[in-house]
Amino acid sequence: MPNVNADRLLGDLDALRAIGAQGPGVVRPAFSAKDMEARRWLARKFEDAGLEATIDGVGNVFGRSRNAGRALLIGSHSDTQPTGGWLDGALGVVYALEVVRALADDPATAQHAVDAISFQDEESRFVGCLGSRSFVGTLPPEQEAAAIDRDGVSLGDALAAAGLAERPRLRADAQRYAGFLEAHIEQGPQLEDDAKRIGVVTTIVGVRGLRVVFRGQQNHAGTTMMARRRDAAAALFDFAAAVNREFPRVAAARSVWTMGRVQLVPNATSIVPGYAELDLQFRDADEAVLDRFAGLAERLVAEANARGGVMLELQRSRAPIAPTEMDAALRRHLAAAAERHAPGQWLVMPSGAFHDAGIVSARLPAAMLFIPSIGGISHDFAEDSRREDIVLGCRVLADAAASILIGSDPFLGSDPIVMNGGHHLSKRGSDPERV
Amino acid sequence: MPNVNADRLLGDLDALRAIGAQGPGVVRPAFSAKDMEARRWLARKFEDAGLEATIDGVGNVFGRSRNAGRALLIGSHSDTQPTGGWLDGALGVVYALEVVRALADDPATAQHAVDAISFQDEESRFVGCLGSRSFVGTLPPEQEAAAIDRDGVSLGDALAAAGLAERPRLRADAQRYAGFLEAHIEQGPQLEDDAKRIGVVTTIVGVRGLRVVFRGQQNHAGTTMMARRRDAAAALFDFAAAVNREFPRVAAARSVWTMGRVQLVPNATSIVPGYAELDLQFRDADEAVLDRFAGLAERLVAEANARGGVMLELQRSRAPIAPTEMDAALRRHLAAAAERHAPGQWLVMPSGAFHDAGIVSARLPAAMLFIPSIGGISHDFAEDSRREDIVLGCRVLADAAASILIGSDPFLGSDPIVMNGGHHLSKRGSDPERV
Repeated sequence: MPNVNADRLLGDLDALRAIGAQGPGVVRPAFSAKDMEARRWLARKFEDAGLEATIDGVGNVFGRSRNAGRALLIGSHSDTQPTGGWLDGALGVVYALEVVRALADDPATAQHAVDAISFQDEESRFVGCLGSRSFVGTLPPEQEAAAIDRDGVSLGDALAAAGLAERPRLRADAQRYAGFLEAHIEQGPQLEDDAKRIGVVTTIVGVRGLRVVFRGQQNHAGTTMMARRRDAAAALFDFAAAVNREFPRVAAARSVWTMGRVQLVPNATSIVPGYAELDLQFRDADEAVLDRFAGLAERLVAEANARGGVMLELQRSRAPIAPTEMDAALRRHLAAAAERHAPGQWLVMPSGAFHDAGIVSARLPAAMLFIPSIGGISHDFAEDSRREDIVLGCRVLADAAASILIGSDPFLGSDPIVMNGGHHLSKRGSDPERV
Repeated sequence: MPNVNADRLLGDLDALRAIGAQGPGVVRPAFSAKDMEARRWLARKFEDAGLEATIDGVGNVFGRSRNAGRALLIGSHSDTQPTGGWLDGALGVVYALEVVRALADDPATAQHAVDAISFQDEESRFVGCLGSRSFVGTLPPEQEAAAIDRDGVSLGDALAAAGLAERPRLRADAQRYAGFLEAHIEQGPQLEDDAKRIGVVTTIVGVRGLRVVFRGQQNHAGTTMMARRRDAAAALFDFAAAVNREFPRVAAARSVWTMGRVQLVPNATSIVPGYAELDLQFRDADEAVLDRFAGLAERLVAEANARGGVMLELQRSRAPIAPTEMDAALRRHLAAAAERHAPGQWLVMPSGAFHDAGIVSARLPAAMLFIPSIGGISHDFAEDSRREDIVLGCRVLADAAASILIGSDPFLGSDPIVMNGGHHLSKRGSDPERV
């Protein structure tokens, strides 16, 4: 069994945390000076671990094994939110580094090929999952050309400033890989609430984003009688309250919906707003549930428009993300490793957050492992995980990587899934494959 | 009867409009270069009309009559909204100038004293009704010291830049004045809807402003299950929908309420907001109605807090403005003049917008006259009024000014109010005084 070195792992996580540290948090948005410094540090660490390291033309840091044969790709991202936590992304990247070293140290796996990767801009400074999209070839050139950050900087200028404009871009070689593994903090409270230490991801939930536009008439808040108003804000409040009243009727157990962004124009205390926007996002692991939500939103808009006054328009605010099933065989290896290292203390669960693995799965078999987030907190300086959970997660990942590369069938022995019973949390638990 | 010169009146309105004109609108916010240019232009026009003109230490342009005896003060404001209309304020100021000239031209009134004034910053760049507050002595020094505009410029710096810092400030001499008259565009559609040409204001409605603060928990929109959320936006939508459902039950016929400003934090599509603010403003001519609205808002907050999750706090977002009754005697003069010039084509009505007359009335008897706004539009480049209504309004104002100064009792003859029947629009119509 590969021997994960806890001190080396935690030491490297601390070293990466120091690059861009602000208090307990990390500020290392994609292509910032600190992000590029972290990427150069990672490339050196990959080289030290015996890999052939490169930083490609979108900033992906890739460490290629010098060993022959089918390879496993492991990684995540090392860019952060504008005010990010220290583990989001970084955990999975340093896990990849440590798994490479642990497998190289073990004669049983030393001849196998493990590549490590840190994708660029998972956190959407320019394009969400820019690096993994580029890597698997699903980044439309027109989207790249149009990409600007919230300060108006173009992606092209950021690439040039980071010295990447002329570098070649890596493409995933599907023939090379047995699959891709990504470890990540959960970013939610499920594992902690259930007193579990490892999550094996069944599905990355699908996301749809709608924007409801309300067009009324701007007026003076003192001189315009109520009966005469076409108040865009009042229509928005009505619509949003209707969503929160009606959506539960068609929701699945783990469906979520969020109206986190509102814009009123002119957004002044004494002016009846003539224009408003409301973003409505919903997520579920089941495309049919997403269809029900979308249909309900359309019905609520049609009902409001039938009443008249303010006119509503439903727009698509983002390209929809379909639910992404993780690879069944890779999941079995992760589940078996979890049961060996933390018997009864793991579960299977969907991922409510999106991840690079959701992009990579379009080209390679992909699977994900979660460790608990303390208090479910993420995208915040307070983000943290217990050190023993961090070490345990890496041991599970290294063990699963070894079993995938060695080619053992995790179900030749006992069936850890049935023993564990963790599948009750996931609707996927009823699938034939049981995970 | 004083002889208003229509060409002179419209010519001066056009000349003032040209200072800061942008297309059909005017951009002349308080203390801007264009505002100060307009004030110097007004001071010259006041001098040309025989008045002794000064610009005081807050920018009020004051033209003092050289005649002896009890005086009448007439005026409004010449500053505009950041993107304002050409008549809001300017109309009443140029009316004052024309009334001064018309009364001076008429031997029956030439010996009477009419002062003209253009107050500063009615439109709240720094302090709403700054000039009239200073003039009547109700501007708290600490409010003045703390005043900054939306760009962070302090009032003190703006006064210095305009060269006003060292100038003395005028104070209203209550002994000098029989009263204050302000003419203004209606800024609403009531006169137009009722096919009337003159409004005599009964009351400037009271205004209360509340801010509801919602404190929840910020979370990831993908990983936080619905049952665990404390979504500040969802609580805001619920509260706002409840206001729009419940307020009509306690409202009077002309009550208005507005929720024109919302702030979600962080206001991002993919984040459950942990904090939100909602401004709730309501207006009515009757303090008892305002009390009912305030009590209802408190009850809705208490009910939400009893449900738990997100916690609501009700704050006062502005100093309340009590309903301000216009002076009964002055109103009778305005009504009688309206009936003489536009028999059956005028009405009595509350003002839903606030005006300098509401400030001045704390120290002097004050009354107001409205002319129709085309389409009810104001605070917009499209603001306009029919030229014949502009001229008619000035004739009514000049005639009322003459009758006030001459001291005739408008009820010695017929009772125009009863004849006109316009009082049915106002709850004040049932007052003993009949207007």
